[in-house]
Amino acid sequence: MAVTRRELLTGGAAGAAGLIVGGVIGRAVGGGDGGGGAGLSGDVQQVADARGLTAEEVRKAVKSFVPPGKPDLDEFLLFSSGGHGGQILVIGVPSMRLYKVIGMFTPEPWQGFGYGADWGEAVLDEGTTEAGTPYSRARGKLTWADTHHPALSETNGEYDGRWVYINDRANGRLAMADLRDFKVKQIVDVPNLQSSHGGAFVTPNTEYVHISSMTPTLVKTENIDKALDNFKDAFRGYSSFLAVDQKTGRVDLSRSFQVELPPYTQDLADAGKLVSYGWAFINSYNAEMATGGNLEGKEPLEVGASQRDFDYLHVINWKKAEELVAAGRYTTKNGMKVIPLEVAAKEGVLYLVPEPRSPHGVDVAPNGEYICVSGKLDPHATVYSFTKLKEAIEKQDFEDKDVYGVPIVRYDAVVAARVELGAGPLHTQFDDKGYAYTSLFLESAVAKWSLGEPYFSGDQAFKLVEKLPIHYNIGHLVVMEGDTVKPAGKYLVALNKWSIDRFPVVGTLKPQNFQLVDLTGEKMEIIADMPITAAEPHYVQGIRIDRIKAWEVYPPGTNPLTMEPDPNAVKEGEERIERKGNTVEVWATVKRSNFKPDIIRAKKGDKVVIHLTNVETTPDATHGFAIPRYNINVSLDPGEATTVEFVADTQGAFAYYCTEFCSALHLEMQGWLLVS
Amino acid sequence: MAVTRRELLTGGAAGAAGLIVGGVIGRAVGGGDGGGGAGLSGDVQQVADARGLTAEEVRKAVKSFVPPGKPDLDEFLLFSSGGHGGQILVIGVPSMRLYKVIGMFTPEPWQGFGYGADWGEAVLDEGTTEAGTPYSRARGKLTWADTHHPALSETNGEYDGRWVYINDRANGRLAMADLRDFKVKQIVDVPNLQSSHGGAFVTPNTEYVHISSMTPTLVKTENIDKALDNFKDAFRGYSSFLAVDQKTGRVDLSRSFQVELPPYTQDLADAGKLVSYGWAFINSYNAEMATGGNLEGKEPLEVGASQRDFDYLHVINWKKAEELVAAGRYTTKNGMKVIPLEVAAKEGVLYLVPEPRSPHGVDVAPNGEYICVSGKLDPHATVYSFTKLKEAIEKQDFEDKDVYGVPIVRYDAVVAARVELGAGPLHTQFDDKGYAYTSLFLESAVAKWSLGEPYFSGDQAFKLVEKLPIHYNIGHLVVMEGDTVKPAGKYLVALNKWSIDRFPVVGTLKPQNFQLVDLTGEKMEIIADMPITAAEPHYVQGIRIDRIKAWEVYPPGTNPLTMEPDPNAVKEGEERIERKGNTVEVWATVKRSNFKPDIIRAKKGDKVVIHLTNVETTPDATHGFAIPRYNINVSLDPGEATTVEFVADTQGAFAYYCTEFCSALHLEMQGWLLVS
Repeated sequence: MAVTRRELLTGGAAGAAGLIVGGVIGRAVGGGDGGGGAGLSGDVQQVADARGLTAEEVRKAVKSFVPPGKPDLDEFLLFSSGGHGGQILVIGVPSMRLYKVIGMFTPEPWQGFGYGADWGEAVLDEGTTEAGTPYSRARGKLTWADTHHPALSETNGEYDGRWVYINDRANGRLAMADLRDFKVKQIVDVPNLQSSHGGAFVTPNTEYVHISSMTPTLVKTENIDKALDNFKDAFRGYSSFLAVDQKTGRVDLSRSFQVELPPYTQDLADAGKLVSYGWAFINSYNAEMATGGNLEGKEPLEVGASQRDFDYLHVINWKKAEELVAAGRYTTKNGMKVIPLEVAAKEGVLYLVPEPRSPHGVDVAPNGEYICVSGKLDPHATVYSFTKLKEAIEKQDFEDKDVYGVPIVRYDAVVAARVELGAGPLHTQFDDKGYAYTSLFLESAVAKWSLGEPYFSGDQAFKLVEKLPIHYNIGHLVVMEGDTVKPAGKYLVALNKWSIDRFPVVGTLKPQNFQLVDLTGEKMEIIADMPITAAEPHYVQGIRIDRIKAWEVYPPGTNPLTMEPDPNAVKEGEERIERKGNTVEVWATVKRSNFKPDIIRAKKGDKVVIHLTNVETTPDATHGFAIPRYNINVSLDPGEATTVEFVADTQGAFAYYCTEFCSALHLEMQGWLLVS
Repeated sequence: MAVTRRELLTGGAAGAAGLIVGGVIGRAVGGGDGGGGAGLSGDVQQVADARGLTAEEVRKAVKSFVPPGKPDLDEFLLFSSGGHGGQILVIGVPSMRLYKVIGMFTPEPWQGFGYGADWGEAVLDEGTTEAGTPYSRARGKLTWADTHHPALSETNGEYDGRWVYINDRANGRLAMADLRDFKVKQIVDVPNLQSSHGGAFVTPNTEYVHISSMTPTLVKTENIDKALDNFKDAFRGYSSFLAVDQKTGRVDLSRSFQVELPPYTQDLADAGKLVSYGWAFINSYNAEMATGGNLEGKEPLEVGASQRDFDYLHVINWKKAEELVAAGRYTTKNGMKVIPLEVAAKEGVLYLVPEPRSPHGVDVAPNGEYICVSGKLDPHATVYSFTKLKEAIEKQDFEDKDVYGVPIVRYDAVVAARVELGAGPLHTQFDDKGYAYTSLFLESAVAKWSLGEPYFSGDQAFKLVEKLPIHYNIGHLVVMEGDTVKPAGKYLVALNKWSIDRFPVVGTLKPQNFQLVDLTGEKMEIIADMPITAAEPHYVQGIRIDRIKAWEVYPPGTNPLTMEPDPNAVKEGEERIERKGNTVEVWATVKRSNFKPDIIRAKKGDKVVIHLTNVETTPDATHGFAIPRYNINVSLDPGEATTVEFVADTQGAFAYYCTEFCSALHLEMQGWLLVS
């Protein structure tokens, strides 16, 4: 079952996956009517026959289909990372229909995000600072991100449908969208982080949203070309607790803090809950602190970082950290309160626990007691007991300290179980019946296994129950509400990195594949494949659709940044143009089928400020406002008020127009910007 | 049936649509099991009952479902405009699954388009010139477009699966993607155009791709603030025939030409075929040349542009135009050969034909004989006979000339039929049985009607056959291969502008709705709703999937811009770093699971040039290459070679990494850029 390190390092990852994939393809093609004689009759049978569908496939169709006009048959919404597309995808379950791509970090023209509307420009500006680490100005503001971990806001450990956060793996940032209008409100360029992988989660009452560094941050800026030789001292990691304003959902950096960490590569993370409330858990790999150097005759990173038998789970007492911050036991670094590593190690904020061989996922079970870790070079899930961990910490049952003086808790004292699952286990989710589901990357499968008390006991506990082959190379997976204190179960979605032969060939870049798995039967069953074309999603959360209370229209004159009345919103009859010096300021209304005013005159070099109010109150009566050759496009949903500001640096007659087909006379919804 | 102009102009468009919508909702909710006793048995029936699906809905599921592992059950691919998202969407039929969003004008991080890769930067640079009309530099290159009309390449009037073109309504541009790798290769900033609406089509052998202006272009740059008072002389339209290189699919501007047009607002367009080969047809509205001025006490544009009972169909003899160009009868304007309006009018290149009341769609039937026009304020489809049109032109059967001297063909001499369809007819497509399908915007319906000879004759010809309510506000529609000489029929997709209540509420901006309609039964039947979240698609073409011959991997070392071997591609073992003066040049390989080299050293201010070759040959073995804080992300599909070039203007240690989860040791696929 176990894949050897050597196989993995010598291209075996590809090889092993290839072999397994081959087997799975064989089965898929050789499979077929396993429906067990489910009979069909009448015209349905005729249609099925004509299309070559088996009875089993008809059942899958009926399980996943959401018929025209019955949207309520979608029971859950997935909030999926959009990967290096820099967005969040919103998908219905079981229909697997894409309902929205929320522009988070990457400009999104349909939503008018990043194409001139004031709210979006403000968000992008806030997200591009020197506080994360310096950024290159050669390509302007940061307009790209690698979104990884969405984190829906929670109350008492359950999703509450207010906000969603997501981190930027590439640049160490975090963005937030409001689930009233499904629009981004803030990008936080988190101080002292250059990158962030799987560290985003909210604490159980959304007190904080957490984000940690992945590749550690350079902290000594002398002799940068020799920095890698001095890795131990030149780099540090950071665990960031970003305080959330409970009214707006925005991060308030003034109330936030970081815990300095060793420069191991911090990876996945999760919040403690219920019994483990107040604690946080972060995986790491590369405790070797390998740096690569494959053209310089040194060991490649993937070899150097895979030497030791153990890396470290980081255990953080964030309630204790709060106390230290309140007591002033921090230093300020790039505007952020930071608890130094030595203080964290000494004062009981930070502990390490050995984890087997290049761990990846860490997931806390619904009851908060079990902390499940998967080592990608180890075929087991390792389950830690929080009760044992707390006892060991209290008894100072440490096996050592690391080179930075951080106590290492004795492994055998805290492990509740090791469950052999298969090759390449990564991530674990939970259902409502005490089962855990772990993705097996190398084996292209989902392993279902049982937890211990209070769910299962004796030889029923910690036992592999079933494996389901998926297609192919699964990374994360999600069970509906499967990372909360009350999982909903019912459906699982496998987030597969490769699709290979599952979809028509549409060029050299293939979609990812989300597979919908029905958990309600005796066996797990894949019921649909969904191609994902917006880059590679990492993590997904699935929320009961009735927890979302989205708006269909804005209260009249609302600015989407503040969600409050815009001071420059106007009603019909209040439209006007004013010139002050070199500024032309316009207050305009927008409705079917005109802009008022429909002629704006400026001189070359003037600053033009256009306040737009969509005075419609009908749901779906969205208008756009685009200015040709100025790269400007704004979306004005019903009730929305937005301002566009630009320098009229280019002479001409520009026909601004509505970009949403709003009415029969939509084409006539046009005006002239005359720049003379 | 007809909606009065007054209703439309006083918000009646919304009102009328609202009423109809109400009725349709009522029916949908009140409907239900219309399946006519199609019996189900066994577990399928149980699942259907549990989910509340009627027998009719089960049949729809079975008609549209493409089961996991059977991608071949998708029969067609839609190439859809991505509207103001600036992209092309690729969708399977009947699964209605989104297989790709091709980055065309708007940067697309997953495909690495516009985030530093040389091929994409070259495309964006080519697409931002002063030749279209001047553009504002305030917001950098043009990174946004409003895509409207995809045009798949054709051979003998059938799709051939080589290339796809699409126009930019906002900025008067055109982009082309190669259907071997589904990537954009060229954006053409078309000289003399500021905008372009529905004018993109290819001629039947892709000799040319056509694009015409929409809002006319300002041609007199004196007294711009008074330009609207002098509209007749200050503005002109342009019909552009862009010559296609038959090897690469690229537009060759040196062999292209334009026909100057009156400054009516040119709108939809289509190519003649078979009997009408060599001719082109362009609708127009606002023959009134109204300019608006609603804050200045003038008539709003939507009123001013709707005064006359007739606008003009523009009829262009492009074969004749070719002859004139060959004879030197052109002027050169911004680098483009332009046949002046007076020459076009005098020499038989341009004719006008009256069209009733604010026409919108013009569509040539498969046999090339019928030219179908819909006036959005007129309840009829007007069908012109090309044979009659040619006769009238030969006989000079003109009723007048317009103010520019263009002959106006006598209306009654060329009309074959007027078919009363309903409120707000827009666009027409054709099936393989002689039927036409016209979208009715105001009525939210599709009208099916019969053509004349050779399809139908006597009182069976030109007859409304059936109407299907859709949800809601349909714009374009597409029948599979329905604008070619050999339509495939079978499925129709309605492109609906509003979705209102068809999907869960995901904020103030609602998806559009594509509705899949089965054409094979006695009656048209809607079988699926697909939310569209990438902005508002305008036109779609549906191609038989077996016509697409896409690559799964590139020949080793291929540059995606040229589709030829990249001179800087390397094989394993050839990796190196060279410094020349202030330039650091790197030749790197990319494979599971490393970049080689994995350390790159530069000094602040150095130019860094990194040539990357993905040396994998396995389909789906894509890697990314991202540099944090430099806003750089490249996609390297198997075999692809790309170059990234930037100034290392920012000091630090930047952990470049692979953005595609490629292998078990993907996280370790990382290197260090040290800028000291």
